[in-house]
Amino acid sequence: MFKVAIVGAGSAVFSLRIISDFTKILEFKDVEICLMDIDESRLNSTYILANKLNEEMGAKLKFKTTTNLEEAIDGARFVINTAMAGGHDYLEKVRKIGEKWGYYRGIDSQEFNMVSDYYTISNFNQLDLFLKVARLVEEKGEKDAWLLQAANPVFEGTTLILRNVPINMVGFCHGHYGVHRLAEVIGLDISKLDWQVAGVNHGIWLNRFLYDGKDGYKVIDEWIGNNVYEPKHPFDDQLSLAAIDMYKFYGQMPIGDTVRNSSWKYNYDLETKKKWYGKFGGADSQIGWKWYQNNIKEITETINKLANFVSMNPNIKLLDYNTYKDYMNNEIFKEEIESIINPKKFSGEQHVPFIDSIVNNKKQRFVVNILNNGAIEGIDNDVAVEIPAWVDSSGIHPEQIMPKLSERVIKYYLKPRIMRMEMALEAFTKGDINVLKELLFRDPRTRSEEQVEGVLNEIMNLPENAKMREYYKR
Amino acid sequence: MFKVAIVGAGSAVFSLRIISDFTKILEFKDVEICLMDIDESRLNSTYILANKLNEEMGAKLKFKTTTNLEEAIDGARFVINTAMAGGHDYLEKVRKIGEKWGYYRGIDSQEFNMVSDYYTISNFNQLDLFLKVARLVEEKGEKDAWLLQAANPVFEGTTLILRNVPINMVGFCHGHYGVHRLAEVIGLDISKLDWQVAGVNHGIWLNRFLYDGKDGYKVIDEWIGNNVYEPKHPFDDQLSLAAIDMYKFYGQMPIGDTVRNSSWKYNYDLETKKKWYGKFGGADSQIGWKWYQNNIKEITETINKLANFVSMNPNIKLLDYNTYKDYMNNEIFKEEIESIINPKKFSGEQHVPFIDSIVNNKKQRFVVNILNNGAIEGIDNDVAVEIPAWVDSSGIHPEQIMPKLSERVIKYYLKPRIMRMEMALEAFTKGDINVLKELLFRDPRTRSEEQVEGVLNEIMNLPENAKMREYYKR
Repeated sequence: MFKVAIVGAGSAVFSLRIISDFTKILEFKDVEICLMDIDESRLNSTYILANKLNEEMGAKLKFKTTTNLEEAIDGARFVINTAMAGGHDYLEKVRKIGEKWGYYRGIDSQEFNMVSDYYTISNFNQLDLFLKVARLVEEKGEKDAWLLQAANPVFEGTTLILRNVPINMVGFCHGHYGVHRLAEVIGLDISKLDWQVAGVNHGIWLNRFLYDGKDGYKVIDEWIGNNVYEPKHPFDDQLSLAAIDMYKFYGQMPIGDTVRNSSWKYNYDLETKKKWYGKFGGADSQIGWKWYQNNIKEITETINKLANFVSMNPNIKLLDYNTYKDYMNNEIFKEEIESIINPKKFSGEQHVPFIDSIVNNKKQRFVVNILNNGAIEGIDNDVAVEIPAWVDSSGIHPEQIMPKLSERVIKYYLKPRIMRMEMALEAFTKGDINVLKELLFRDPRTRSEEQVEGVLNEIMNLPENAKMREYYKR
Repeated sequence: MFKVAIVGAGSAVFSLRIISDFTKILEFKDVEICLMDIDESRLNSTYILANKLNEEMGAKLKFKTTTNLEEAIDGARFVINTAMAGGHDYLEKVRKIGEKWGYYRGIDSQEFNMVSDYYTISNFNQLDLFLKVARLVEEKGEKDAWLLQAANPVFEGTTLILRNVPINMVGFCHGHYGVHRLAEVIGLDISKLDWQVAGVNHGIWLNRFLYDGKDGYKVIDEWIGNNVYEPKHPFDDQLSLAAIDMYKFYGQMPIGDTVRNSSWKYNYDLETKKKWYGKFGGADSQIGWKWYQNNIKEITETINKLANFVSMNPNIKLLDYNTYKDYMNNEIFKEEIESIINPKKFSGEQHVPFIDSIVNNKKQRFVVNILNNGAIEGIDNDVAVEIPAWVDSSGIHPEQIMPKLSERVIKYYLKPRIMRMEMALEAFTKGDINVLKELLFRDPRTRSEEQVEGVLNEIMNLPENAKMREYYKR
């Protein structure tokens, strides 16, 4: 039928979500899915579980695996890129160097960009991979092939690719589900909401929030007046004091990861983070991030064990949870697998429904990252924005953003965030290390030239940054 | 003929420059000049010397003095505003409070706005005075009266007034003379230069620099390759290492006060300042600013003594320097007075030549602060920019900015500077203290909420800030 490539398919949870979504759409039951990863062992786990799932769901998806990027993309109509160059280990290594030089949470944690795996300064290999994948889509993909970007930094990546490579491309994120979380906490029925969010990835704001046709912000205000939210886990921050403080200043509610992407006011140190994000200090504190890392580690281990179990016991049924529940010692993965095997539930990842809209001309609503081209007033046309859009076989049709984003969101939040994106991309595209240095000279944690030179040198001297080092030394 | 009001005329050197310029333009010999200041003693000194100068220069200027602002502006065709609400004492008092709370050089010293008497955060009374003067010009001035703004902050002031009061208004500064200083140091004849500067006040850049029709930047580059400049005084920074470093990053030369308005990279502390600005640490170090303050003090004292001497000895000739040179123990004032009494030399202040162009339709070139209205691409129309313009009786005609400002100047320097202007003006026009707080939360010297609350409270509790306090507490 057509070929889909998943780049970074060793990320098994993400891949299984995508594959499970494919099995649940009638028209897609025999799509060819090429799983690509450089980690063969993780790739193999994904492959085993994917086949099992396919078989049990009665789908006829065809899987291939490869460690070769070109081979994966060759002839693909859709390429989903979820790969992180260097993985989480690289991020932690670089964060550690940053902290050694006086940058709490690492040099890539910046004003309005504090999400702990959203690196823009030291992430040369990731930006390089973004472009490499995009160029391969241009050269090797099917005519009018689509690149669906899932890996961070989505904002920088989408802007970089769409400015430089003439392909169909869209960036996806989960951030807008914060609207559902918000509704849930304040007790509103999602089905009665008329909402819009707009901004840039990890910097989106609730510009429209109607409940049953009436101003839903009144319900938010009332809730805020009567409640103080205690987070259930570090990422549970949609109604944290930080979110509410941002809402009060900017005049619109920050949604999803935007709450994490605030100024240093909420992030000076762990104590400050706890004050604003609750007892865990939010997702991007040493506590919250450790929790997240442990989860990832456990999930990966659980998946490997499960894949192993399945290959040793080929008659087991994934759809019969009781037969292998002993392996599910991880609560989050348990929820995950239950969702994956539920034939009536989609994963929430937008990729497969998006492909469904494009291929089968089913008009559906998404929140997409695409170049602005006038969608948000006051933002340059060639900057990737995150906005709601309707998609069908003729492509992506952005909604009119109405009402507008507040002046403060545009002028005081999005513009400085966009400037940092521009600096990161200029450094990368021109190979000028001075722009990265300038970014750090404007960092409130910087106290001297030596600090800037020192931290960048140490990061560039990591063995995995040989290409970055050479590139910036030209 | 017509009436000119000088608001803040107790600033004797500035007033004498203006008056002396009037005496040197044939058509202006009988203009009526109303000197206004709230400091009667300083006003009187100006008045005595003004009359003496007028008489000796053979002019027939008519002087009046008043401490009443409305009276000064009533019927004026041109109002020159050089008044600083609270004077230098206020600035130093506020700086001291800032330093007590951990803000080296005070809270108003901000990235790209480090000039030590250019307050935007704590300067409520000055912004308030700007508007008051502008509204009086609208109500009481002659039809089509002009307001010529000389007092800082010119950028915020010009933008504020031109956005809110429908009058003719222009802001003036000396910064562009940095081009002459640059030419002098690197050995170029000013008369052979074809130059342009553009940007915002105290943030202007040498976008055009042709010498004898050829690229003058080559001469700059050669000079830089062979010289390291040692400043003769703290303000002598046009070829400081800071200026050169900025030039290398931004791709165009910062001109005049722009060199002082850099990032914290050059300003972390005195040691850093000395490294980049030479032995005095630049104008805005504790050394440089002390030097400037001492100069102001000495000049003021010298002027008062001279005025006293003149009133006791009415037959003395100001034009005969020998008769009172003993009073001129201040080297800078000596130069100043020599320039003032030189019948062939204009002061360099643009105000009187500008009035000459408007009234007498003499087409001349100025560097003016006016709303952008498309002059600089990428900058909003309603932001005051500083650009070269030709002026005649039909008004101000901006030059086309060619070549353009560099992308880095626009994106990484002007835009963040403009954002801070917008924040200062929004706080002021809406009476929202939270915007000033947000400015400080983004300040690299801020480490806690308590620090922000503490420093603002202490400043607002100064007796002279009663109006500010009430305004922000509404």
